[in-house]
Amino acid sequence: MTDAPPRSEADADTLNEAAAAPRAALDDFLSRAAAIVGAEHVSAPDDVDDYLDVYALGDPLAHLPGGAVRPAEVDEVQEVVRAANEFGVALWPVGRGKNLGYGGSAPRQSGTVVLDLGRMNRVLEVDDETAYAIVEPGVSFFDLYEELRRRESRLWSSVPDLGWGSVVGNALERGYGYTAHGDHQQFICGLEVVLPTGELIRTGMGAMPASEAWPLYRGGFGPGFEGLFLQSNLGIVTKMGIWLMPRPERFAACRVAIDSESSLPALVDAMRELGLEGMIDGVVNAANAVGVAAGSSSRERWYDGDGVVPDEIVDTIASDLGIGRWNVKFAVYGSDAMLDLKLARIDEVLAGIPGSRIVAHRYDGDASAEEVEPFDHFAAGIPGMLLAGGVRWRADRPTGAHIGLCPVSPLTGRHVVEAGRIMRTHIEAAGFDYIGGWLGTGRHAVNVLMIFFDAADAEESERVKRAFGELVPLLADAGYGEYRAHLDFMDAVASRFDFNDSSLLHFTRTLKQAVDPRGILAPGKQGVWPL
Amino acid sequence: MTDAPPRSEADADTLNEAAAAPRAALDDFLSRAAAIVGAEHVSAPDDVDDYLDVYALGDPLAHLPGGAVRPAEVDEVQEVVRAANEFGVALWPVGRGKNLGYGGSAPRQSGTVVLDLGRMNRVLEVDDETAYAIVEPGVSFFDLYEELRRRESRLWSSVPDLGWGSVVGNALERGYGYTAHGDHQQFICGLEVVLPTGELIRTGMGAMPASEAWPLYRGGFGPGFEGLFLQSNLGIVTKMGIWLMPRPERFAACRVAIDSESSLPALVDAMRELGLEGMIDGVVNAANAVGVAAGSSSRERWYDGDGVVPDEIVDTIASDLGIGRWNVKFAVYGSDAMLDLKLARIDEVLAGIPGSRIVAHRYDGDASAEEVEPFDHFAAGIPGMLLAGGVRWRADRPTGAHIGLCPVSPLTGRHVVEAGRIMRTHIEAAGFDYIGGWLGTGRHAVNVLMIFFDAADAEESERVKRAFGELVPLLADAGYGEYRAHLDFMDAVASRFDFNDSSLLHFTRTLKQAVDPRGILAPGKQGVWPL
Repeated sequence: MTDAPPRSEADADTLNEAAAAPRAALDDFLSRAAAIVGAEHVSAPDDVDDYLDVYALGDPLAHLPGGAVRPAEVDEVQEVVRAANEFGVALWPVGRGKNLGYGGSAPRQSGTVVLDLGRMNRVLEVDDETAYAIVEPGVSFFDLYEELRRRESRLWSSVPDLGWGSVVGNALERGYGYTAHGDHQQFICGLEVVLPTGELIRTGMGAMPASEAWPLYRGGFGPGFEGLFLQSNLGIVTKMGIWLMPRPERFAACRVAIDSESSLPALVDAMRELGLEGMIDGVVNAANAVGVAAGSSSRERWYDGDGVVPDEIVDTIASDLGIGRWNVKFAVYGSDAMLDLKLARIDEVLAGIPGSRIVAHRYDGDASAEEVEPFDHFAAGIPGMLLAGGVRWRADRPTGAHIGLCPVSPLTGRHVVEAGRIMRTHIEAAGFDYIGGWLGTGRHAVNVLMIFFDAADAEESERVKRAFGELVPLLADAGYGEYRAHLDFMDAVASRFDFNDSSLLHFTRTLKQAVDPRGILAPGKQGVWPL
Repeated sequence: MTDAPPRSEADADTLNEAAAAPRAALDDFLSRAAAIVGAEHVSAPDDVDDYLDVYALGDPLAHLPGGAVRPAEVDEVQEVVRAANEFGVALWPVGRGKNLGYGGSAPRQSGTVVLDLGRMNRVLEVDDETAYAIVEPGVSFFDLYEELRRRESRLWSSVPDLGWGSVVGNALERGYGYTAHGDHQQFICGLEVVLPTGELIRTGMGAMPASEAWPLYRGGFGPGFEGLFLQSNLGIVTKMGIWLMPRPERFAACRVAIDSESSLPALVDAMRELGLEGMIDGVVNAANAVGVAAGSSSRERWYDGDGVVPDEIVDTIASDLGIGRWNVKFAVYGSDAMLDLKLARIDEVLAGIPGSRIVAHRYDGDASAEEVEPFDHFAAGIPGMLLAGGVRWRADRPTGAHIGLCPVSPLTGRHVVEAGRIMRTHIEAAGFDYIGGWLGTGRHAVNVLMIFFDAADAEESERVKRAFGELVPLLADAGYGEYRAHLDFMDAVASRFDFNDSSLLHFTRTLKQAVDPRGILAPGKQGVWPL
């Protein structure tokens, strides 16, 4: 760590003063932080290995933390934030630091100190009657699941592919799971937030001390503020209410496969219609054949050539694994009679799609994790690490890494095919397998391009970075904007949300200036730099 | 109109400079506005009868507009806003001005000029495929319904009791309807907003010009801003995306009645459970016997005494009208087989509630408005004015008025009974019939106290005002905060959202100062005054 922290070229015109605080100010801040949280809960600038971007595209030191501070209580967070203002040091809050593929724990700008909220890991409330929990940011999906079991609660949480991440962090970054509550941001209700000045607020009904409706009513008196703290550097969320799903009587974990790319548009449209009709409950998760294979194997099993996995090999993969060219999974909930009706309607719609087939596994709502097939856990919100193996697709060694590019489109066959076509064409030209997928939630699709690469291979990493950097504007030209982005692409993505001379970004920065006059909170997050 | 506009005592310590602009500045502003929108679309200070609070509690001049301006296009709104900044004149935006019971078109502070957006009444888009519309703020529920019929759309909108209000205004004020999309704020997706500086922004994907996902994805890159413009004076919404509901195959309009107050807690809990199970689709609307009677008759039909309608008369009302002591209505959607299952489950749950009975009317999804019983229109989103007669309960003459007090609680029997008890006790002591109800939407209840009174009767109006003013703190002490409020009670309600020394209100005012430095937009709305 030197007085002038490393910065990427992209930082040159956006460098934040607080993130580039002189070493003396940083040292003073870390000393103060140690007095607040205890010296054992502060990491010095030369001790930040746990906070690097483990899947960095190129130099992991491009996003080098200036240290780390681990508070355990809300008032400690407030004191640390006040100290950051006093010494002019920038903070980068993380819950469990598992924002992998988007930067992990690492800050946008080197020199920013990681505010690790992992010790704040209490499930503060679980209410079976009105179906919610209040959690701290360090609570993982595993933690919440275990706590619900421990309390013999009737409630389910929704979980993303990997269970180690933060419930709060995932929802705030607009992550997805796969139960009826899979669009996590829609189930946030009630936030406690430490503002960049150290002030503490509670949103909605939480502002009325005697009210019990804080985690129950997504309104309040006056403006609503939940959205303001999503993908945001306007505050640090220290408590979050999340609506949970009462365990259904029965559920079905469903998989639909199609054997031909040409059926993809019809499949997408069918999933949208079934969702709008209420026949599918929640998020539809689709992956192409290579995507499914990557979840459970290394590409060398199928192909050891240098270029893209050839089309005939993809056929072999699909045939060997008994999967389709495209594969969707989703869940359906209710009594057996209800499942009969819903699955009959789903069959009826799928009958119109050539080469489609469905498998539905039914379970009791109170089946134990052991009684549910591991690949069906998603439907019951049982957390796991099953898909962590994906990083071995390209490089079956510890440096296997992944990164995602996820443009949003309408959930229509035409748009999903077009977004996929743009990404496939470009990424294959760069020499990478097209590992594609999409999440469908009612009306929109998050189109997923996942690249597995070897983070130790500088040339390969650089190739990914270049291809992604080129794809962002290509996709934007076609009307597809990313729903989140790796640190390296935040500015590029933000710059294309440019209606009316980027008036929305300017508005965000105006708010930023008002609530964070010293610019100490997460400078550069989602392209939002202090004015 | 004098140089010093009239103000209520409550205004004394919160008076806004822009709303109290000198007459010369006001005249200059109105002249400029006339140049922008045309002289015929500007109302002078002495020509504001159309913009008074027709249901004012006492002096309608307590909220006397300083004039009115009626732009027809977004750029006219921007120009008018810029002029308001230039001349230091405050603006109060209204869609169709039907915020009745909460102030109608009238501004919080006298002297504020009404910005009447009623001429911006275009349905800009209807998309059958992905099920949304984009509307301007002057579009009424009638307008949207007619436009959907004209296009032979498969989509339904959700409508509140009266169809004349603004779709945008209702959603922004967090109003309710009664279809599966009845919690209107939850179906807003994509806003275009003129900021208090005149700048124009589009939220979420709307900030990416080529994106078609603006009305489809309730996210974006970075913070989400839809909530910020609910019950807000931070911007003027000029376009709103709203998710619509594809017409179901069949639907059932359901009514449940209970004959005894003692069954109310069980009824509330049953409605919550059925909602969480997905058996009831959308909002549950409950009214007590007097409430139902008030919707279709005058109290003189039952009782001509001075005090509260006696309990035995309530029995007569219930018996004569064939209703219960409490009556809920809700809707269920799906195929006939699906309705069979849902209604069987509803029957099963209600069987546990003594004295409860249900009537369900089934219709085809494509039934015409004429084929659906008027009292069942709510379930199909068919707009009407059926309940406008309620204002005749207390005074069957043109000065019949109403006002609502609506505290939010958890949707549990215990809380709904307690909130009702507090309101009933207090309002009956003040000599008014308890016209009570509640809306249940999943996890929370909006507990409704509706008072019908004679606006021409100064003593009666004053009595309502006093009783409501006393109820706000009584309810807050018990943990029940209002979800919206009449102009006269905005400050009182806001003052009880006072966690951590009212830090949330202070935060809102900090944002207000940043985006509206001259304080020209809707000063005092929801208790938010410029700093």
